Amino acid sequence: MLPFDTLISFDRKAAMPVYQQVANGLISIIREGMIKPGARIPSSREMARLLRVHRKTIVAAYEELSAQDWIESLPRKGVSVSVNLPQLKPRSFKHVVNPLAYDGSTGHFFMNTGDTVLADVAAKKNYRLVLTDGFPDARIAPVDTLLRHYRLFFKKTYPEGAIMHGDKEGSANLRQALAAFLADTRAIHAGSSNLLITRGAQMAIFIAAGLLLKPGATVIVGEPSYTMANMIFEHFGARLIKVAVDENGIDVDAIEKICRKKKPDLLYVIPHHHHPTTVTLSANRRMKLLDIIRNHKLPVIEDDYDYDFHYNQSPILPLASADHNGYVLYIGSITKSFAASVRIGYLLAGRELIAQATKQREMIDIRGDVLMEEAMAVLFKNGEMQKHLKKSVKLYAERRDAFCNMLEKVWGNRVHFTKPAGGLSVWVQFDQKHKVAAIARKAAAKGLYMADGNFYNSDKIVYNSVRMGFASLNKKELDEVAAIFKSIQ
Amino acid sequence: MLPFDTLISFDRKAAMPVYQQVANGLISIIREGMIKPGARIPSSREMARLLRVHRKTIVAAYEELSAQDWIESLPRKGVSVSVNLPQLKPRSFKHVVNPLAYDGSTGHFFMNTGDTVLADVAAKKNYRLVLTDGFPDARIAPVDTLLRHYRLFFKKTYPEGAIMHGDKEGSANLRQALAAFLADTRAIHAGSSNLLITRGAQMAIFIAAGLLLKPGATVIVGEPSYTMANMIFEHFGARLIKVAVDENGIDVDAIEKICRKKKPDLLYVIPHHHHPTTVTLSANRRMKLLDIIRNHKLPVIEDDYDYDFHYNQSPILPLASADHNGYVLYIGSITKSFAASVRIGYLLAGRELIAQATKQREMIDIRGDVLMEEAMAVLFKNGEMQKHLKKSVKLYAERRDAFCNMLEKVWGNRVHFTKPAGGLSVWVQFDQKHKVAAIARKAAAKGLYMADGNFYNSDKIVYNSVRMGFASLNKKELDEVAAIFKSIQ
Repeated sequence: MLPFDTLISFDRKAAMPVYQQVANGLISIIREGMIKPGARIPSSREMARLLRVHRKTIVAAYEELSAQDWIESLPRKGVSVSVNLPQLKPRSFKHVVNPLAYDGSTGHFFMNTGDTVLADVAAKKNYRLVLTDGFPDARIAPVDTLLRHYRLFFKKTYPEGAIMHGDKEGSANLRQALAAFLADTRAIHAGSSNLLITRGAQMAIFIAAGLLLKPGATVIVGEPSYTMANMIFEHFGARLIKVAVDENGIDVDAIEKICRKKKPDLLYVIPHHHHPTTVTLSANRRMKLLDIIRNHKLPVIEDDYDYDFHYNQSPILPLASADHNGYVLYIGSITKSFAASVRIGYLLAGRELIAQATKQREMIDIRGDVLMEEAMAVLFKNGEMQKHLKKSVKLYAERRDAFCNMLEKVWGNRVHFTKPAGGLSVWVQFDQKHKVAAIARKAAAKGLYMADGNFYNSDKIVYNSVRMGFASLNKKELDEVAAIFKSIQ
Repeated sequence: MLPFDTLISFDRKAAMPVYQQVANGLISIIREGMIKPGARIPSSREMARLLRVHRKTIVAAYEELSAQDWIESLPRKGVSVSVNLPQLKPRSFKHVVNPLAYDGSTGHFFMNTGDTVLADVAAKKNYRLVLTDGFPDARIAPVDTLLRHYRLFFKKTYPEGAIMHGDKEGSANLRQALAAFLADTRAIHAGSSNLLITRGAQMAIFIAAGLLLKPGATVIVGEPSYTMANMIFEHFGARLIKVAVDENGIDVDAIEKICRKKKPDLLYVIPHHHHPTTVTLSANRRMKLLDIIRNHKLPVIEDDYDYDFHYNQSPILPLASADHNGYVLYIGSITKSFAASVRIGYLLAGRELIAQATKQREMIDIRGDVLMEEAMAVLFKNGEMQKHLKKSVKLYAERRDAFCNMLEKVWGNRVHFTKPAGGLSVWVQFDQKHKVAAIARKAAAKGLYMADGNFYNSDKIVYNSVRMGFASLNKKELDEVAAIFKSIQ
């Protein structure tokens, strides 16, 4: 007889009931081929004695095993391993989940992208201070109000079921509130049926690109541009055509030249606070670009991820607010206006395209946190979001100024930057003697996270620059950042 | 002079300041070509009189326009439209977002899927009662506890920044807690580095399929199977090979035959409570399937979306708990254990695959609601989730029995169903005289939502069946459902 007492281990304190642990242990033994199908196993009484447990426990385990067809109890014959199981060779049984052992030659499950994104955050964690890519300060957001509403929706939550089977485009209330908000703030006059709620701007880009691109397509992007968008376009098999971005935004003359030669399939443009360089498209270029879009019937993804933050003057209106014959897909983010962890964004486009995009969204993620969307809708409808944004803009303008002053004072002419007219971060270029990666490493050792800048570089261009998010730093934290910067020079 | 007072409209009660509304109005006029570049516009004093606003308002509007390069103020020459703008022909300016006006011939942004999913919910909303696809009852979940922790993480939220730049695979705490939970409940012994947190099982399937499939690939799925997974596989260009599902789960002999002929690229299997039919893979077939996986090196997506709900006996262990040489990618859902709106799922696989999957996830959605993930981790770590599940299983077993009794009493032999051993819904087959779609229509008129069953049908097979989620119905609601069913027969 097998030494069942050593083969079967169990822990009386474990969450799993003992009888089930015993059953699982026996299953392992059978699966390892240590007992063959048809072979007898000890009676429940005998097994209880061996394992020093109550007989009832073994009876329960055997009932379990019997129900699962692992063992058979025959009258007067006792208990035996089911004959109906495949014969197994004895082999070592390791509870290890290995990487999928493909032939290295196929390798088609490796994405065609670099390792920078992951490497960038390889050694994160436990930072006392963080220079984000440009996130708002969740501490000033009306989180209590949001969560109060969220909780209320949970309370009256038989409707949860109804909501689940509700609008696939996202909360109708939120889409309605957003449509009004976009008209008020951006002169975009669209209905809620022109909106799809997503998890954030990123998902909106992914879905839009998936609908517009096929392998071999061409996409005009800025140089530099938002790396995660570039990844998406390449993921869908598109070739990037890079166009210079200067202090007035993307070079629209270059775009026109490209269109005259051969119309590309898509233009990706970030009109406000271009990522990463934070420049705003000039009014002049915006006008020209609208002409190009109309003349060449050029589809555009307009990524207006932080339109809501302007400090010097009102923003140029988005392309989507103008007459673009439906060629502009507009993308925005509520995340940027509230808190980085509450990820809600949207895609605005023609109804047919929204219908297609909704199917994609469903396939990727079914739906969002619908109750959170409902709670957010309340904030928009009762004006709390608008009040919050007003307060944010005032505070962030001060923080921007303070941050830029700090940069000048601490780094002097070792850095170059232009104070951004809007947005939540500064694009800081270091001189060639000061490598961003080295500074990031030293800062990390002092408890300050900043990106190493590698994210923005390409094969050809090394910017030695980094985005420094100023919006989430209060006065005390800013001073601490300054002190760390001073200490590592 | 243009009738500026009728051309420029503004609303003193709007959220947008009046000066900005005036500026936007002027921009529209310039863009419409009604005033040419270089042409004079009224002085601020004159314009203030025309529009009956304070002169300061117009001064602010002109400063705005000037800053945006729309107008120029020259000393002694007054204000004129910037010469630097492109000349525009007059045209009607409509604030309309049209569908992307592609040539109908290309049409490549239309997905290759039917309209069933959207059509299914075309006329939803305002249902008093809902038969879900199989969701838990959020009213019995420890929502207050979850939200208390969530709020706490927001409070100490300078860490939000740190968290944002934290683990791209999802909250390390949640992955750790999940790894322990999976070992306890499923005998899957994996580390937290084998886990990627997703928005739900759906996103996990999307990501896994994206890594494993390329156009022309073949995927074995059940007939019927989870339609949204089929959509994903076809989205990635794969061909579906459909294998019968009977009362013991998917036909593994058929799978072996297919593998002997030509190995497919993927097997998609739902071992517990197969979607939609709710059957469980028998122990016998599970063993055979493991042999097939090992012998043929067959990659598998094991979608174990509601393992946690078993009523008659303990569940068969997942394939992933056995020795599968790393070929099994395991997918689970926390959503199903808590509340439909809180969408958290996971993918468990080898580390290299998780690293690739993490990049995909980032491209699709950057990250989840990290604070919610942290809050959920607390629930697992302090045992509240386990307690909640224990309570849920007890309650749902009762609700299942009550629901099945109701079905028998109300529908008698007009329906056929097998009481499911686990999961949150019953697969109800109506006889040919009673069409599910017609019943759903009649139920809807009485305020009860149920799916029309079209979702599960294919070109070849019409099941005339529907999943009825019983878990979220309390006694009173069940009685109401019964009354509606009786009234529509």
